[in-house]
Amino acid sequence: MRHTLSILVMNEAGVLSRVTGLFSGRGYNIESLTVAPCLDCDYSRITLVTEGDDDIIEQITKQLNRLIPVIKVMDLTISEAQEREFVFCKVNAKDENRSEILRIAEVSNAKIIDAASKIYTLEASGDEKQINTMIELLRPLGIKELVRSGKVAISK
Amino acid sequence: MRHTLSILVMNEAGVLSRVTGLFSGRGYNIESLTVAPCLDCDYSRITLVTEGDDDIIEQITKQLNRLIPVIKVMDLTISEAQEREFVFCKVNAKDENRSEILRIAEVSNAKIIDAASKIYTLEASGDEKQINTMIELLRPLGIKELVRSGKVAISK
Repeated sequence: MRHTLSILVMNEAGVLSRVTGLFSGRGYNIESLTVAPCLDCDYSRITLVTEGDDDIIEQITKQLNRLIPVIKVMDLTISEAQEREFVFCKVNAKDENRSEILRIAEVSNAKIIDAASKIYTLEASGDEKQINTMIELLRPLGIKELVRSGKVAISK
Repeated sequence: MRHTLSILVMNEAGVLSRVTGLFSGRGYNIESLTVAPCLDCDYSRITLVTEGDDDIIEQITKQLNRLIPVIKVMDLTISEAQEREFVFCKVNAKDENRSEILRIAEVSNAKIIDAASKIYTLEASGDEKQINTMIELLRPLGIKELVRSGKVAISK
């Protein structure tokens, strides 16, 4: 099962390496991860998405809680949470594609932030389904580059 | 100097741990990091912000390039790039705060996504300056929780 973990840690060198090491040590891939300082810059918040057996995730969570720089771990999979992702997408904007890109941007609530060349750059944020739908609409036109933030989540 | 690195890697277990280990091994803190799969799910894109001596960052970049699962490293600090961040913010919504929260949301281009209780949840995306300005406007009202994605960047 896919899990979204929200991990409050001390904002100091080596913490991210220790946290990610607990997953790689078990051969677990981290699908996405975001980390940035909190309001109090002494702390950072990690939002991490991984897929794996519930028992193993519980074991990893227990190990995370035992790391000194880890303050708190919440599994947002099992609680209600707001989830979003931010994405940049560069798409082939040859003449016959342009009106279609504008249409997709409109229905996807995306902004075209660079339309100066044969490649348009779009930005959008939304839940995973919205972002995936936009990508699938743009894919036939030719996506040149895609940068996703990975999931950001907050408890309701 | 602050550096924004964009790192294309194989999407497999252990890569993130190895990449972050190169920074912690030198005592370098990673200020923010986002990682998520690319259009081709065999690859992931890491956007990483760190502060440090230019020569050391260049050394780390060379070491990154020598890791087998690392395909390409770009230092977006020295090229022009689009940069954004996504943020969730829960703020104290006692009666006398509410109109001020609405006003701040409007000027910050933020959305109020939960206004059901005494705490409002806002979401916003923008460049670092816009996000920091919004946070400073909301701070006096009482920020209960802040989750930032960290910087996402794409070359122009």
